[in-house]
Amino acid sequence: MCTIKELLGSNKYLLREVEVMGWVRTFRNGRFITLNDGSTFSDLQLVLTENTETDEEALAAGTSIKAFGTLIESQGARQRFELQLKSLSVLGQATGYPIHPKKHSAEYLRTVPHLRVRTRTYSSVMRLRHRLIMAVHNYFDRHGYYYVHTPIVTGSDCEGAGEMFQVTTLPLDALPKDENQKIDYTQDFFSKQVGLTVSGQLEAEACAMSLGKVYTFGPTFRAENSNTTRHLSEFWMIEPETAFCDLSQNMDLAKDFVQSVIGQVFEELPMDLEFLDERFQREQLQKSLSQRSSMGLIERLKFVMKNVVTRVSYTEAFDILKRSTPNKKKRFNYIIDQWGCDFQSEHERFLVEQHFKSPIIVFDYPEKIKPFYMRENEDQKTVRAMDMLFPDVGEILGGSQREERLDVLQGRIAKKGLSDTDLSWYLDTRRFGTVPHSGFGLGFDRLVQFVSGMSNIRDVISFPRTPRGSML
Amino acid sequence: MCTIKELLGSNKYLLREVEVMGWVRTFRNGRFITLNDGSTFSDLQLVLTENTETDEEALAAGTSIKAFGTLIESQGARQRFELQLKSLSVLGQATGYPIHPKKHSAEYLRTVPHLRVRTRTYSSVMRLRHRLIMAVHNYFDRHGYYYVHTPIVTGSDCEGAGEMFQVTTLPLDALPKDENQKIDYTQDFFSKQVGLTVSGQLEAEACAMSLGKVYTFGPTFRAENSNTTRHLSEFWMIEPETAFCDLSQNMDLAKDFVQSVIGQVFEELPMDLEFLDERFQREQLQKSLSQRSSMGLIERLKFVMKNVVTRVSYTEAFDILKRSTPNKKKRFNYIIDQWGCDFQSEHERFLVEQHFKSPIIVFDYPEKIKPFYMRENEDQKTVRAMDMLFPDVGEILGGSQREERLDVLQGRIAKKGLSDTDLSWYLDTRRFGTVPHSGFGLGFDRLVQFVSGMSNIRDVISFPRTPRGSML
Repeated sequence: MCTIKELLGSNKYLLREVEVMGWVRTFRNGRFITLNDGSTFSDLQLVLTENTETDEEALAAGTSIKAFGTLIESQGARQRFELQLKSLSVLGQATGYPIHPKKHSAEYLRTVPHLRVRTRTYSSVMRLRHRLIMAVHNYFDRHGYYYVHTPIVTGSDCEGAGEMFQVTTLPLDALPKDENQKIDYTQDFFSKQVGLTVSGQLEAEACAMSLGKVYTFGPTFRAENSNTTRHLSEFWMIEPETAFCDLSQNMDLAKDFVQSVIGQVFEELPMDLEFLDERFQREQLQKSLSQRSSMGLIERLKFVMKNVVTRVSYTEAFDILKRSTPNKKKRFNYIIDQWGCDFQSEHERFLVEQHFKSPIIVFDYPEKIKPFYMRENEDQKTVRAMDMLFPDVGEILGGSQREERLDVLQGRIAKKGLSDTDLSWYLDTRRFGTVPHSGFGLGFDRLVQFVSGMSNIRDVISFPRTPRGSML
Repeated sequence: MCTIKELLGSNKYLLREVEVMGWVRTFRNGRFITLNDGSTFSDLQLVLTENTETDEEALAAGTSIKAFGTLIESQGARQRFELQLKSLSVLGQATGYPIHPKKHSAEYLRTVPHLRVRTRTYSSVMRLRHRLIMAVHNYFDRHGYYYVHTPIVTGSDCEGAGEMFQVTTLPLDALPKDENQKIDYTQDFFSKQVGLTVSGQLEAEACAMSLGKVYTFGPTFRAENSNTTRHLSEFWMIEPETAFCDLSQNMDLAKDFVQSVIGQVFEELPMDLEFLDERFQREQLQKSLSQRSSMGLIERLKFVMKNVVTRVSYTEAFDILKRSTPNKKKRFNYIIDQWGCDFQSEHERFLVEQHFKSPIIVFDYPEKIKPFYMRENEDQKTVRAMDMLFPDVGEILGGSQREERLDVLQGRIAKKGLSDTDLSWYLDTRRFGTVPHSGFGLGFDRLVQFVSGMSNIRDVISFPRTPRGSML
């Protein structure tokens, strides 16, 4: 048996008899079957000869078949090779198959996540997702980073703010109570109250203090009631952490990483990307002008891949935004007025698409709007934070140089009202052989969304998790 | 700045001035510092000249330093190059560092997981873990498999038996109740009762029905109160799923996969493995004879890597065990008597180490001891299950050909007392274009344990999760 990718990948099988298995996409004119087996974007055309027995109904879309025949050069213009059938058998029929060749809405397809992956669009997105994952691992491996599995169930809350999912084995209908009638978590599985991680950063920092360069790539969770096209309750996050690395080197890494990873997919999946680009452009036409992307999908990828990445401090960016026409004319939904405010997506997009016309990294953000672990600058007003901003989507990743000075870090923990008992283990990394170090976090599903051009993040992972969403 | 791996990897830096940063392992005779930066197993020896200012205490183990000097050929026998220091600065002291050069017990080190990763043993294990992960991804990618992220939070329980962790955002001290005074899960985050996944297999099967070949590699959970050296409550599992693949091809894949992955690490980390081998042999000497491994670590790896993998049916294996000397002499803790019993680790080890003297795959297990989704054989007593067994540890992976016939599968679901409403989506994969397919599951942490030779699985992941265990 050969995969379609193997058959179409070279001349090796030309004029040879081969066996192939897959699912019928279409059956036309009682003569042509387009078959896909998932190995590649391309379908294989099977040509029935007069004496192949067939049954129109048995070959409906979704049917699985085994075909045997000779691979020949195609008469048609659309494919290089086709299979002249010698025999054909149905493995599994698809009577009542709920996915028809006609276009379904994304909303409908979300109700059948176990089947939508069989469509051309979703299988392309899944192949793209795979290639991006491989590119991520290969990039870090090539650059001497060690992948670490940080814990999913955790007693700590990295950002000190996150809305966490609670994890328990206590019987909810008969909760054990202590003498003060409080829930007795000493009887829970881990003998304390625990939840699902919001980030592996703190643990990754501890590992970087030994292995030098590490990264995480695992699921993270937010129990936020955010029903947007950009939020998942369960999403995969990439978090590199580099010892002996300052903010400037961290920006170098972020730029090089994102450009390499996108570049690799660009080379490896030309057909899928072309298909997704056409899809993207068609979808844009259905949107109002103000909602449309500023460029095509492939154009957008080239924009971030081939461009310089301009670096601009928060204060400079703030000044640019404050003086900008949309701010003066009150066209922004959030008017930029006081230094210290956080930027919204509209501001980030203005900077990237209108002002700099390149991807940018904004750095040195106000201390007040950033977490406790970022390194304080000498002005004591800003921290060594950085956000990389892309067209259409705004922030694609965020990171910082970490505060490596024990006393300063303890001061910031106190200022933010966090518990330094809970963080005592983390402070050990500063007590014993502390070093300058930096890292960033990138929501992987958002990267897939950006590269695939899918409007809704629920459409870039096979079984999305969202508030009150389907649990299929 | 260079990493130690770069400095020692070629002659490129010889006689050149270089800067290097890392952590002090030892400082001897006021003259020699061994420095490690995590990039490789090897330390770099720094040689102080008379006019380098030093402070014995400031250079205690664990201290981070920046060093500048000339890389020269080493006078000593233990290393090829060393760094003749020109200047040295302390980045972070390590006063009171709780890890001393003397050997600590594994139990003690488990209380400081954020620091134990800095030791030679644990950093070796972490590098090994990384290389194994890369080998896994590269293997599957090279063989046309797509990596799929299956959900962590789920409403389904693949094995129909698992002890699951519950995930909730309901306030436990004020649970909402419905009219029957039952907990009202419609008000929970996902509007139903959910838990942490025990396996991504069912979702992977759905993806394989589109992409052909897929695999998962993600965290899975068991809320079992198992305090053994082989159980984690949170562990990483690898689950390939292959469409158009029968049990025999699945065995081919399992054999080739495991041998390739171990082989790759063998080539890539000779120094770490040699170190771990010595460690393993020393540890064996402290064990009672009956507890000792049948071979050395490297020997054991060669045994599984270079050998044939014998295939034997459950029924044959049962007969061999029943007739075996330890069974007749009642030396097994569990006597083999009735066909249909499950094998224990002692039986598995007997088959591998005493009888076949090779890794083996046992296939066609009794239906009663295996899950509902395995393909029924014509005898209706056995299913197309397979377990691969290794020396010392017994089962290293388990899998099966899946039941692709809708009616047979529905029969087995009913027989096992499971709900076919909950599994309705899964049955869709058999309703629409079903195909023969197979897969297996391999607990990744157990593979790391096998390859590294660590006695306790808690020592092969940076922050282990176990019942009532530390949540650091």
